[in-house]
Amino acid sequence: MSEGGSWQRERAHGDQDERERQLTETVVASFAGTPDERLRTLMTALIRHLHAFAREVRLTESEWAAAIDFLTEAGHITDDKRQEFILLSDVLGLSMQTITINHAAEGDVTESTVLGPFFVAGSPEVEQGGDIAFGAPGEPCWVEASVRDVDGRPIPGALLEVWQADEDGLYDVQRPDDRTAARGHLVADGDGECRFWALTPTPYPIPADGPVGRLLHATARSPMRAPHLHFMVSAPGYRTLVTHIFVAGESLGGDSVFGVRDSLVKPFLRSDGPTPDGRVVDGSWTQVRFDIVLAAGERD
Amino acid sequence: MSEGGSWQRERAHGDQDERERQLTETVVASFAGTPDERLRTLMTALIRHLHAFAREVRLTESEWAAAIDFLTEAGHITDDKRQEFILLSDVLGLSMQTITINHAAEGDVTESTVLGPFFVAGSPEVEQGGDIAFGAPGEPCWVEASVRDVDGRPIPGALLEVWQADEDGLYDVQRPDDRTAARGHLVADGDGECRFWALTPTPYPIPADGPVGRLLHATARSPMRAPHLHFMVSAPGYRTLVTHIFVAGESLGGDSVFGVRDSLVKPFLRSDGPTPDGRVVDGSWTQVRFDIVLAAGERD
Repeated sequence: MSEGGSWQRERAHGDQDERERQLTETVVASFAGTPDERLRTLMTALIRHLHAFAREVRLTESEWAAAIDFLTEAGHITDDKRQEFILLSDVLGLSMQTITINHAAEGDVTESTVLGPFFVAGSPEVEQGGDIAFGAPGEPCWVEASVRDVDGRPIPGALLEVWQADEDGLYDVQRPDDRTAARGHLVADGDGECRFWALTPTPYPIPADGPVGRLLHATARSPMRAPHLHFMVSAPGYRTLVTHIFVAGESLGGDSVFGVRDSLVKPFLRSDGPTPDGRVVDGSWTQVRFDIVLAAGERD
Repeated sequence: MSEGGSWQRERAHGDQDERERQLTETVVASFAGTPDERLRTLMTALIRHLHAFAREVRLTESEWAAAIDFLTEAGHITDDKRQEFILLSDVLGLSMQTITINHAAEGDVTESTVLGPFFVAGSPEVEQGGDIAFGAPGEPCWVEASVRDVDGRPIPGALLEVWQADEDGLYDVQRPDDRTAARGHLVADGDGECRFWALTPTPYPIPADGPVGRLLHATARSPMRAPHLHFMVSAPGYRTLVTHIFVAGESLGGDSVFGVRDSLVKPFLRSDGPTPDGRVVDGSWTQVRFDIVLAAGERD
């Protein structure tokens, strides 16, 4: 009797396993006619991993419903200035994994890191020696950057787009007004060099008032980002570089989007003496140098 | 030279593999402090599968961006009457897999299938012999249902919620007006029986004007659902049943949400003779019987 019961349970278990496997195969088969081979590959792998996840954790119906609610809320908080899905990808490390997959280490080429949700195309042009802060609050930071190829040749005319949070931890697009501040673009000079004023990066939390913030809270994770300054660097004939520089000596281990790479950590030297261009600063200022190396390739 | 080159490439490949693995481990470790053990299990498995998917397919940055756009668009088309994320889960078979995981076959208990995105709580009450159509167009269908436990005992007072698309393939919530039609609820009589008029189910496409519709189009999948009538059946002391009945003889193989189960396919007998309750019908009508068995358990 007890053996028979056990045998029946095993058979029932086997049937259940087979039912679940068969369903996955049926769904995979439904994509067999996808004309684009790459899309078929993506959907097949997605189905297999999604179903394997649900089966492995024995996903409950209320957990499934919570996931639907999470995505719905993420969709509703997302607008042209707030991107909760990028934030979600960032805190799950998917953004950084995608970047890692697509940017294998390549000699001296500057390493990439996450784009983040706050890049805005069409930032104001800033002259050499100008200031991208546009009035945003924070300690001034003198930035010198060079753009070169892997053989050390300067890339004059390279486009540097730069953006950052101010000392309140906010990007301009997070402010209720429509101002543009703490972002701009420069064109590298004939020596492939750029110099400009920005703000000393400070730690700030990623937006925590949405579902991603609640996820971080529920999982006892910090929403803080390691202090950083964003760069997007592009030139014809080179792969576009999306990266940050991080402030050496700041807490870098708990970056909430896993964006820190050792090679991108730079000393920001603080001073209260005269500035490189004679600008009169009330209080301290910092300076940093970033030597950028672009890989040859298609400009995105 | 060639051997050295090959060795260097292998080392580089090994480094890359290690970098990707290490990133996944870092992200998993970031969830180690999650107080709720179940949430930690879910997040750990989600991270592993998500990263494994990206690594396996070598997800490109533009594919990642397309996924972000897809989710953003799904979020923006979703409102209190349109649920693109449930639709997405449905066409990826995740909804049906979740149901399969949570509703193992159990003797004669009626099988479950997908809820779908069109259930609305608080539908109008319909008397025994009444009509849930409320003017929705379609061929009348006389439905007789019984609700019993696994020992065959009737469950008087069981709540049957019933909803369906009309013959235009639309649920009421898909109409621009605010009418309630082709949905209602009944209470089983003292013998655990219900009888009512509904509409003969017809095939219809799931909403195809959003990102999920475009995904189906791009993958050459049909958006059509097998004709069906939705039931949600509940009673104190029993697990709530969410299911459909499908029309025998209709095309059932290509159901776009993988919802068909053999045990739920029922004959809908067509007639143009007198109706069971003497209602005068102009043209043909059908009738179907659905004997429902609920499992004992918690009512959701």
